[in-house]
Amino acid sequence: MTSLLLFYILDLAGTFAFAFSGAVAARNRGLDVFGIFVVAFLVACGGGVLRDVCIGAVPPAGLSDWRYLAISSVAAVMAMYSRIVRERLEAPIVLFDSLGLGLFAVTGAQKAMIYGLTSEGAVILGVLTAVGGGIARDVLLNRVPAILKGQIYALAALAAALIEVVGHRASWPADRRAMAALATCFVLRFLAVRYDWHLPRFVTPPDDEDPRK
Amino acid sequence: MTSLLLFYILDLAGTFAFAFSGAVAARNRGLDVFGIFVVAFLVACGGGVLRDVCIGAVPPAGLSDWRYLAISSVAAVMAMYSRIVRERLEAPIVLFDSLGLGLFAVTGAQKAMIYGLTSEGAVILGVLTAVGGGIARDVLLNRVPAILKGQIYALAALAAALIEVVGHRASWPADRRAMAALATCFVLRFLAVRYDWHLPRFVTPPDDEDPRK
Amino acid sequence: MTSLLLFYILDLAGTFAFAFSGAVAARNRGLDVFGIFVVAFLVACGGGVLRDVCIGAVPPAGLSDWRYLAISSVAAVMAMYSRIVRERLEAPIVLFDSLGLGLFAVTGAQKAMIYGLTSEGAVILGVLTAVGGGIARDVLLNRVPAILKGQIYALAALAAALIEVVGHRASWPADRRAMAALATCFVLRFLAVRYDWHLPRFVTPPDDEDPRK
Repeated sequence: MTSLLLFYILDLAGTFAFAFSGAVAARNRGLDVFGIFVVAFLVACGGGVLRDVCIGAVPPAGLSDWRYLAISSVAAVMAMYSRIVRERLEAPIVLFDSLGLGLFAVTGAQKAMIYGLTSEGAVILGVLTAVGGGIARDVLLNRVPAILKGQIYALAALAAALIEVVGHRASWPADRRAMAALATCFVLRFLAVRYDWHLPRFVTPPDDEDPRK
Repeated sequence: MTSLLLFYILDLAGTFAFAFSGAVAARNRGLDVFGIFVVAFLVACGGGVLRDVCIGAVPPAGLSDWRYLAISSVAAVMAMYSRIVRERLEAPIVLFDSLGLGLFAVTGAQKAMIYGLTSEGAVILGVLTAVGGGIARDVLLNRVPAILKGQIYALAALAAALIEVVGHRASWPADRRAMAALATCFVLRFLAVRYDWHLPRFVTPPDDEDPRK
Repeated sequence: MTSLLLFYILDLAGTFAFAFSGAVAARNRGLDVFGIFVVAFLVACGGGVLRDVCIGAVPPAGLSDWRYLAISSVAAVMAMYSRIVRERLEAPIVLFDSLGLGLFAVTGAQKAMIYGLTSEGAVILGVLTAVGGGIARDVLLNRVPAILKGQIYALAALAAALIEVVGHRASWPADRRAMAALATCFVLRFLAVRYDWHLPRFVTPPDDEDPRK
């Protein structure tokens, strides 16, 4: 029960964090009020919608549960109107974003296995659930997806999805494997931000952008 | 009967207007003959295909009804070969584009409700049907979607989808609510173009492009 | 039997060629190790996943067959680590890419017909299967899709899909029409590369990029 409640809170907090970061990026890129709502919703729900379409779980949860739309809209409004709010929220957003990342990877992989996907398919869809919205955001904002350019971000989601799927196949208790996956993703992401870890790249293009913008 | 015929004509005229605008944009961006056909078809049918995939109405109507392909192809040819045609068609295209926008939002929301989506899901999919093709066009042409950057365009589609869904839940007669939605969308769009209304933005990026190009 | 084996080998070789070209492009664009794997997999499987989602064949084959993931990963590793490998593979990759292009167009159109699509829908989905991954690659790498900008590439896929669908409706033997489609696509693509054929464009944008990069 406790863990169900925890996951529920993390799901809402992660959705908020994803939507907020999308709204800030859209705002800074010069999108209008409507565009900011669209990108906030897309980052929060885009990965899950892609997953649901791929496994045939239609209509996708992101389109049929009003809470995701409501949370995205609140996050968009908060990101739009107040510089103080944006600054105050910076640290908690990084925190909830990391927690949301792990949770989305775990729940995405779980749902894919429930719908009968193979293990490797479930891992791919777990990662897609977690990072699909962020990739869609960067595609709409017309830039190479930041998370494919050196950050330890998609890799942390991959770790979480892998642990969930391997744990499921090995019949670990559901709670324990989800907790292990969440913790691994969070610690990996935390250490990467704290010690400025990056994945290797072979070429640095001249038009390289700051992924934060 | 009359309204069915009217909707049928508007559907074809709107498809033509969407395809034509896509073809002109693709042509001006340096795409080849094949690319112009692709973008014309994508703008005309992309939003509907996304909607159908999300509600599980496969194969999507845009892929199984040859008329959409035929109309898109005619629009592409007309956009390619004659400057005179492009100039003569400029005013009627804006007109039919606005009518198509409202109609696609209404029929998109209707189809989503038929397939059992919630009210908010139906509104989202109505808007997606109307503006999804235009967003896909700008993603392919490698720029930030014009309709998310200040134009009163997606907002007019949102108004139409909202009226259709609210009217449906309130059991208004089908004809009357569709007409109200179409008229609202058209008037809103007309006034926005006429008086140069824009949605507020918070930042104007230096690389801002003319959305017409 | 022989042709089944041939198609099987071509499918794997084509997947490798698509993934390898995607990995090289991602590497040159400054993506990290993880991003290179993602783009390799996307180019190899993206078109097929889009097709499967459109015809309701979920979960898509690209996500449920581990061999595609394995081949993409091997191609990504080979593209990453050795300049000698990249140079040695250049000529065979162009060869297998052309063969894969025709085969994907043929199998894509076949699968669409099996799932009940109309002839024109099957042709569109055949082309989408063959070129969808390459378009997704260019969208992620933030540039206008190279194959829509003058190369005889999508057109060769279109020829293959058309021959397959027309041949199917005309009840030609399955083997013979697939062979005719493959050969046409390959010869068209070979001649286009050999004699530097291009589709006409109407405008050459100033920011034109080399599609190879």
